[in-house]
Amino acid sequence: MTGKIITISRQFGSGGRTIGKLTARQLGLECYDSEIIAEIAKKSGFDQNYIKENSEDTAETGLFAALSGLDFYGHSNRDEIWTMQCRVIRELAEKGPCVIVGRCADYVLKEDFDLLKVFIYADMEARARRIVEQYGESDEHPEKRLRDKDKRRAAYYEVYTDQKFGDFENYDLCLCSSSIGIDKCAKIIREVYQM
Amino acid sequence: MTGKIITISRQFGSGGRTIGKLTARQLGLECYDSEIIAEIAKKSGFDQNYIKENSEDTAETGLFAALSGLDFYGHSNRDEIWTMQCRVIRELAEKGPCVIVGRCADYVLKEDFDLLKVFIYADMEARARRIVEQYGESDEHPEKRLRDKDKRRAAYYEVYTDQKFGDFENYDLCLCSSSIGIDKCAKIIREVYQM
Repeated sequence: MTGKIITISRQFGSGGRTIGKLTARQLGLECYDSEIIAEIAKKSGFDQNYIKENSEDTAETGLFAALSGLDFYGHSNRDEIWTMQCRVIRELAEKGPCVIVGRCADYVLKEDFDLLKVFIYADMEARARRIVEQYGESDEHPEKRLRDKDKRRAAYYEVYTDQKFGDFENYDLCLCSSSIGIDKCAKIIREVYQM
Repeated sequence: MTGKIITISRQFGSGGRTIGKLTARQLGLECYDSEIIAEIAKKSGFDQNYIKENSEDTAETGLFAALSGLDFYGHSNRDEIWTMQCRVIRELAEKGPCVIVGRCADYVLKEDFDLLKVFIYADMEARARRIVEQYGESDEHPEKRLRDKDKRRAAYYEVYTDQKFGDFENYDLCLCSSSIGIDKCAKIIREVYQM
């Protein structure tokens, strides 16, 4: 499988980003995550925070979001960011083997690139602990925020990809980081990649 | 994780049973699959084929199945077989570490046993090839039969477990055998088990 691009989709708080970085380092590959946002900002002129708010974990879903900020042709800024994001992801993939975390890269690249598609998830308790301890979020009702984030991420993914977020059929490998551990997840991905 | 019981849920035609047997042999554990049917037959007096037809891939789902063959208390033979199956699975698990393939063992044992819960799936093309080449099934429209089988298995699982079949949250590890390969799937399960 060596030579493929590894895409890592992940539940918020599952440690997917850390696993992606670890895997990339051990394989000597580039890992793209926030770099994608920076590149979209450069290309589009949008502010990085605005891009973050209007991609992946976008706060608004549904009709309101769909209709807000439409241009003359009925495109929203969110659509514009999506188009830009697809272009950036393709450009990065064309440079060669790498690890791409999130941003629907599994869907964007699936027709034209050889992929190892990974999904990382974890149980609610572990995710809540992680966002409080590692991401420095408030310890008031972290589960509620996670459920909300899950909904937004799934909605975004489903609107732009017409696939279901977290549906096993979209991935080669789905790993529960709270059962298996961060390091071991990276090791398994590496092993499958090096087959 | 050593000492746990490995449960392998699997899509029909994904090679999950083969992976289970391979994993068990390499770890020196017993693997229970058709043994469970034989044991239910012994305990219940039902014929093995009748048990197969009324468990897991049961041909009838929905109201008709729910109402057919009810006893005085509103229990169907299918319910009776389910109860027996739960008992057999628990008795096997109590003997110690082992691999159990299918039969909702992940659900049946989850409260009282330490489990490594695995889900094996594969793409439709690979599954169709497998049921024709390895299981000797007819090569006329194998995809149609697989889709039908998927529906039945999911319906059975959902009726008796109130969980969704194939939902990643029910498993520690989900592996696509057509991407990863049968031997490599067994190796990954073994490694996670031996952590």
